[in-house]
Amino acid sequence: MPDTHARRRAALRTSLRERDLDALLVVDLRNIRYLTGFTGSNAGLLVHADDEERTVFCTDGRYLTQSAQQVPDLERIIERPCPPALVARAAEQTYGRVGFESHRVTVDGLDVLREAGEVELVRASNLIERLRMVKDDVEVEALRMACAAADRALADLIEHGGLRAGRTEREVARELESRMLDHGAAGPSFESIVATGANSAVPHHRPTDAVLHTGDLVKLDFGALVDGYHSDMTRTFVLGQPADWQRELYDLVAAAQAAGRAALRPDAEVRDVDAAAREVVEQAGRGEEFLHGLGHGVGLEIHEAPTLGKMGEGRLSAGMAVTVEPGVYLSGRGGVRIEDTLVVRDGDPELLTLTSKQLVVV
Amino acid sequence: MPDTHARRRAALRTSLRERDLDALLVVDLRNIRYLTGFTGSNAGLLVHADDEERTVFCTDGRYLTQSAQQVPDLERIIERPCPPALVARAAEQTYGRVGFESHRVTVDGLDVLREAGEVELVRASNLIERLRMVKDDVEVEALRMACAAADRALADLIEHGGLRAGRTEREVARELESRMLDHGAAGPSFESIVATGANSAVPHHRPTDAVLHTGDLVKLDFGALVDGYHSDMTRTFVLGQPADWQRELYDLVAAAQAAGRAALRPDAEVRDVDAAAREVVEQAGRGEEFLHGLGHGVGLEIHEAPTLGKMGEGRLSAGMAVTVEPGVYLSGRGGVRIEDTLVVRDGDPELLTLTSKQLVVV
Repeated sequence: MPDTHARRRAALRTSLRERDLDALLVVDLRNIRYLTGFTGSNAGLLVHADDEERTVFCTDGRYLTQSAQQVPDLERIIERPCPPALVARAAEQTYGRVGFESHRVTVDGLDVLREAGEVELVRASNLIERLRMVKDDVEVEALRMACAAADRALADLIEHGGLRAGRTEREVARELESRMLDHGAAGPSFESIVATGANSAVPHHRPTDAVLHTGDLVKLDFGALVDGYHSDMTRTFVLGQPADWQRELYDLVAAAQAAGRAALRPDAEVRDVDAAAREVVEQAGRGEEFLHGLGHGVGLEIHEAPTLGKMGEGRLSAGMAVTVEPGVYLSGRGGVRIEDTLVVRDGDPELLTLTSKQLVVV
Repeated sequence: MPDTHARRRAALRTSLRERDLDALLVVDLRNIRYLTGFTGSNAGLLVHADDEERTVFCTDGRYLTQSAQQVPDLERIIERPCPPALVARAAEQTYGRVGFESHRVTVDGLDVLREAGEVELVRASNLIERLRMVKDDVEVEALRMACAAADRALADLIEHGGLRAGRTEREVARELESRMLDHGAAGPSFESIVATGANSAVPHHRPTDAVLHTGDLVKLDFGALVDGYHSDMTRTFVLGQPADWQRELYDLVAAAQAAGRAALRPDAEVRDVDAAAREVVEQAGRGEEFLHGLGHGVGLEIHEAPTLGKMGEGRLSAGMAVTVEPGVYLSGRGGVRIEDTLVVRDGDPELLTLTSKQLVVV
C-alpha cells in the first residue's frame, strides 16, 4: 500500500507547510506505521515539508529485511537510536524549523535531540493524530475485519455453549480471545473484560476466577486487533430468564445507546452526542450510575481522538471511527453496557460491530 | 505485600535524600507497581523523602475498589489526571525541590506540571529503575514462576508432538502461548518468536504461515508474564537428524552461552560478560554473524537495565536478573540462539529457565 502511505504523507506535508516547518521528526510508532506501513518496534521518520524525496525513514539492523519490504518507497537509514540520527540528517541538510512530537518526546529525549544537530526544534504535537481521526478506506477496511473477528468469536462462543453457568470469567475470556485468533485477529485489542453478577457493575473489571451463575448479568467488553487496528464491542447477557430489574436496566441502556448512535452525524458537537445518550439515562433517574463518557475514537489505538464525553471538544466529521458505549451500573447488583464501533457517515453511521443488541438469554 | 512495597519506598527515600529532593513524582506505571503493588492503567505517586505518612497515591474513579485493595497503606486521592494533582498537592504542602521522571515525562507534560503548582521541578531520571536492577526475594519468586510456566509449556508442546513438520510457525506460537496460560501465565511476556528453516537466521522473526519441514532448525524465543514479571528463553531444535553444519553451529552457540553464564559474577563488568561469550564465537570465525548483544536485564520490563553488550556500562551485582542469549545467524540457511534467564548470585548464578540445552532432535 505505498500509495496509501504516500497520500497520508502528502496530507501531513500540507499541515507542515501551514506551520512553516521545514520537516517533522516523527517518533511515535503508530504514527510511523500510519505514514509508512512499518510495523517494527523501533523507528523514526523525518518528513520533509515540501519534498517526498527528502523524507527519510530510520530503523535498526534487526529490521533490515522487514523495513526493506514494508518501506520500499523512502530513503532509509539504519542507525540506533533513530531520533538523533534524523536530527543530525536535518542539520546536515541545513533545515531550519524542525517540528518534533512534544506530546511524545520526553524531557530527557529533547536534550538528546538538541545535542544531535543545529536545527530549530519546534513543538508540534498531535499533527498526525489529527489526520488519523478521519479514517481512509484502507483503515475502515481493517476496522471492519477487526470488528468481524470479534463478532464471529462471540457467535462461536455462544453457539458452542461457552457462555454458561459454572464457568469462570477467566475461562470465558480465554475462549473468546482464542476464537478471535481463529478469525484472523493478531490478538485481543485490549485486556478483555468478562464480568459476571455483581462484578458487571464494575466498569473495568478484570476477569477473575469468579463463577458464572444462573441469573447473572454477564458483561463482555472485548475487541480484536487486525492489521494494527482495534475493534471494541460490549454486549451484556443474562444467564437464564432475566429478572424484571435486569430487563429494565437493559432496555434503558439499549435506548440510550440507540440515541447515541442516532446523534452520530457529521458536524455534531461531540458533547452533544454524549448528551443525547446521557439524557435518556438521566430521565430514568439513573444519571449518577452512568459512570463514564459515551465513547471514544478507535483506530491504531484503542482510545484515540475524538472523545465523546461531557468535556469533549470539537465536532464529528464523516470518516471518524468511534465507539458508542453507555453503561448503567448498580453497585453490588450488576451493570449493563452496550457498545458498538461505528464510522460517522453522511446520513446514518456505518455500524461495524454487527452482533445483535437484543437481550439474549443464554 | 505491603511490607515489600514499604521496604522499596524506604530505599527510594534514601536516594531522594541523597539528591536533596523533598519528594519524587512517579508517573511510570511499572515504577508505581514496584512501589505500591497497584496494577491499574492510570496512576501517579508522590513519594516524600522523609515521611512515609506524607506519601500520596493517586488514581481515577475506575480504580476506586482496586486501589483500596492493592494500596491500603498509603493516602489516596482520586483525580484525573494524576500528575498535576500531585504537583498541586506538593505545592499546598510547600515542598521545595520535587523530582520528576524526566525520562518519562514528555515536553508537553512538563508544561502541565509547571502550571499545576509552585514547586521547583527537578529532573530525576531512573532512580527507581536503578533500584529495580537488583531483585528482592518477592521479585525473584515471580521470575521463577514466569520461567517455570515457559519451561512447562515447552515441555508440554514437545510431549504432545506440537513441534513437528507440517505445522506453521503461527500454529506453534499459538500452542506455546496457550500452554503458558495453562501454567499460570497472564499472557506471553512478548510477541513469541517461532522461526523455521531460513527464517531462524532472522534474529527477530515474527511467526508466519511458513511450514516447518524435516531438517529445519526451529528457533523458539518466548516467555511468560506472571505477577507483572517477564521470563525470556530461547531454544533451537532440529526437526529430524541434524546435518553436520547444524550440529556444529549448535555446539558453537552452546559453548558461547556456557561461557557467558560462567562470566556472570558479582562485580563483573557487563561488557566483559558479553566479551566472554563473543570471544568463543569470534574464535570460530563467526563473530560477524553474532548480530546482537549478549543479554539484558529482565523484570517488570522484558528489557531493562543492565545491558550485557559491547557498549554496556557498569558492573553486575548479586540479585540482578539477566538473560544470556548468544546467537549465530547464517543468512539464508538458518540460525541458532540459546537463551536463559538467570539471577546473579555470589558464586554461580541461579538458573531460572530449566529446559535442557542439549540439542534435542524432535
